[in-house]
Amino acid sequence: MPMNQQIILKSRPQGKATVDNFEMREVAVPVIKAGQVLVRHQFLSLDPYMRGRMNEGKSYAAAQPLDSVMIGGTVGVVEASAHDNFQPGDTVVSMGGWQTYSVVDANEPGAIRKVSTSHVPASAYLGPVGMPGVTGWMGLTQICKPKAGETLVVSAASGAVGSVVGQLGKSMGCRVVGIAGGAEKCLYVTQDLGFDACIDYKAHADSKSLYGALKAATPDGVDAYFENVGGVIMDTVLARTNPFARIAVCGLIAGYDGAPLPMNNATLILVNRLTIQGFIVSERMDLWPEALKTLGEQVAKGKLVYRETITEGLANAPEAFLGLLKGHNFGKQLVRISA
Amino acid sequence: MPMNQQIILKSRPQGKATVDNFEMREVAVPVIKAGQVLVRHQFLSLDPYMRGRMNEGKSYAAAQPLDSVMIGGTVGVVEASAHDNFQPGDTVVSMGGWQTYSVVDANEPGAIRKVSTSHVPASAYLGPVGMPGVTGWMGLTQICKPKAGETLVVSAASGAVGSVVGQLGKSMGCRVVGIAGGAEKCLYVTQDLGFDACIDYKAHADSKSLYGALKAATPDGVDAYFENVGGVIMDTVLARTNPFARIAVCGLIAGYDGAPLPMNNATLILVNRLTIQGFIVSERMDLWPEALKTLGEQVAKGKLVYRETITEGLANAPEAFLGLLKGHNFGKQLVRISA
Repeated sequence: MPMNQQIILKSRPQGKATVDNFEMREVAVPVIKAGQVLVRHQFLSLDPYMRGRMNEGKSYAAAQPLDSVMIGGTVGVVEASAHDNFQPGDTVVSMGGWQTYSVVDANEPGAIRKVSTSHVPASAYLGPVGMPGVTGWMGLTQICKPKAGETLVVSAASGAVGSVVGQLGKSMGCRVVGIAGGAEKCLYVTQDLGFDACIDYKAHADSKSLYGALKAATPDGVDAYFENVGGVIMDTVLARTNPFARIAVCGLIAGYDGAPLPMNNATLILVNRLTIQGFIVSERMDLWPEALKTLGEQVAKGKLVYRETITEGLANAPEAFLGLLKGHNFGKQLVRISA
Repeated sequence: MPMNQQIILKSRPQGKATVDNFEMREVAVPVIKAGQVLVRHQFLSLDPYMRGRMNEGKSYAAAQPLDSVMIGGTVGVVEASAHDNFQPGDTVVSMGGWQTYSVVDANEPGAIRKVSTSHVPASAYLGPVGMPGVTGWMGLTQICKPKAGETLVVSAASGAVGSVVGQLGKSMGCRVVGIAGGAEKCLYVTQDLGFDACIDYKAHADSKSLYGALKAATPDGVDAYFENVGGVIMDTVLARTNPFARIAVCGLIAGYDGAPLPMNNATLILVNRLTIQGFIVSERMDLWPEALKTLGEQVAKGKLVYRETITEGLANAPEAFLGLLKGHNFGKQLVRISA
């Protein structure tokens, strides 16, 4: 039996996360017991929420314990099964973590899900038909609730979540404006994803310049905003909101390194009667089936397009993750762990 | 016929508002036409929202025009009527403004409302059974939505809005904690209004000290917050929120003079999955009848108590208003215009 390679959290970041916060180790592949399934991972999903887990104390959820395998969503193939619902060769989605193999208790509700790769590629279950896709769907349909003709703004527009939000927004009849970093990403957002406009925040030296570009792209103001970033970008978009605008706060990547992240003009909450709501996709599991059905159909039909950045090999996961936090990825960031 | 005394907005504040922004003038009392009612005002309501109207441009609503009578809610007596529904001697509530008399078009929906003073004093229709009371009821029942056993925090707790919020919160079975300025107000909030605790923000030199006091008063965290103030107080309360806390933003008095009002830790929106919503009571007129019915019954039964600061004479309205912005009033700030 081959060994199980694992990447553990070795230390908590002081400010910015670095590769030294991680360490690779090898352990024996566990033997499964009754009700368990052994999965060999094909792809690991890297996501911004992981940065929050690396901090001590109060964040999204419980902190990632030190010296344990980093948490993460995976898609893989069943190698051995002691549960009637799973057979060797099945493709499954689970929270396998940053490692080659994992053992899943298949009786635990929601712990493992069998998926079909006949119309949807396996990796898409970590992207548009997985957690990022459901995140986009949920924030859009439950909080942003845009009506046809309204203007929807999406930050991190070329990313795994933002790209879904914008495409769904277009299908709902909205004017959709993305914000992304770099001309190449912006071109992708408008040409491939079909957004009406995209603002390259890197092309603007200050918030005034950014505001000018946003104003030009949102002549009727902003009715709904899907927030992935925070900081200056959030302040700028809030300044363009119309009365009764809805803001879904999905991520605040600008604040993940622990620096204070002020919202500079809270008065707008009152002046524009805004609704600002933070959410975490895993807290509304009741909504996942409907979301996955919609997203799977759209991907299978080719109506929901997506892009992936695939890093080869588990050993390169830490560097790929740090790059994700800096926006170096283009679309969904994955790590290929095995063929 | 006596003259009509009026206070007009003479100039817009540069930073803090001053008495020089106002001017008194006398004009003839108008003659009523068909459908109109002439009202002699007994009480004028002074409210923080008026400060927003004094600024130019985007705020709650249209700016108060220069050289016109300051907007304001009034309760008064019908002096003359050319409308079948109103008779001389009726007590009526309307937006009469900062003046002795006003003419109301009684056919305009919502412009004038006849009220009974048999169980509720006339002035209460500008307080607990008027706009401030409905504001408290609306933010509490539509946004804060506290459940029995939850902890509700209210800033400006001794004020016209806050006092209603807290008493209704108690009747819903919540632990209610007020924030007010000064020991005397805090004593009133706990002893007369029946809040479980009240924090005197003036007794705390910095936000750390204020946080310590709030922590002691909210051992189970904060589930709902009714915000009247903003700034350091808002930041401090947000830092005590539990997951899924609801924040109704009714007023941000700390920002009314135009200084930037940052929310220093927007990351909490995501970490605690907060819902923060600004609202204006006049935008949900459909809810007023239910609110007024509840509030009127509670006041008539003596179950909803309130306090008034009555300034004598229209000429003293500007000074009373500036005092209100600094928290010099104690309970609902009124101006007695005539007997």
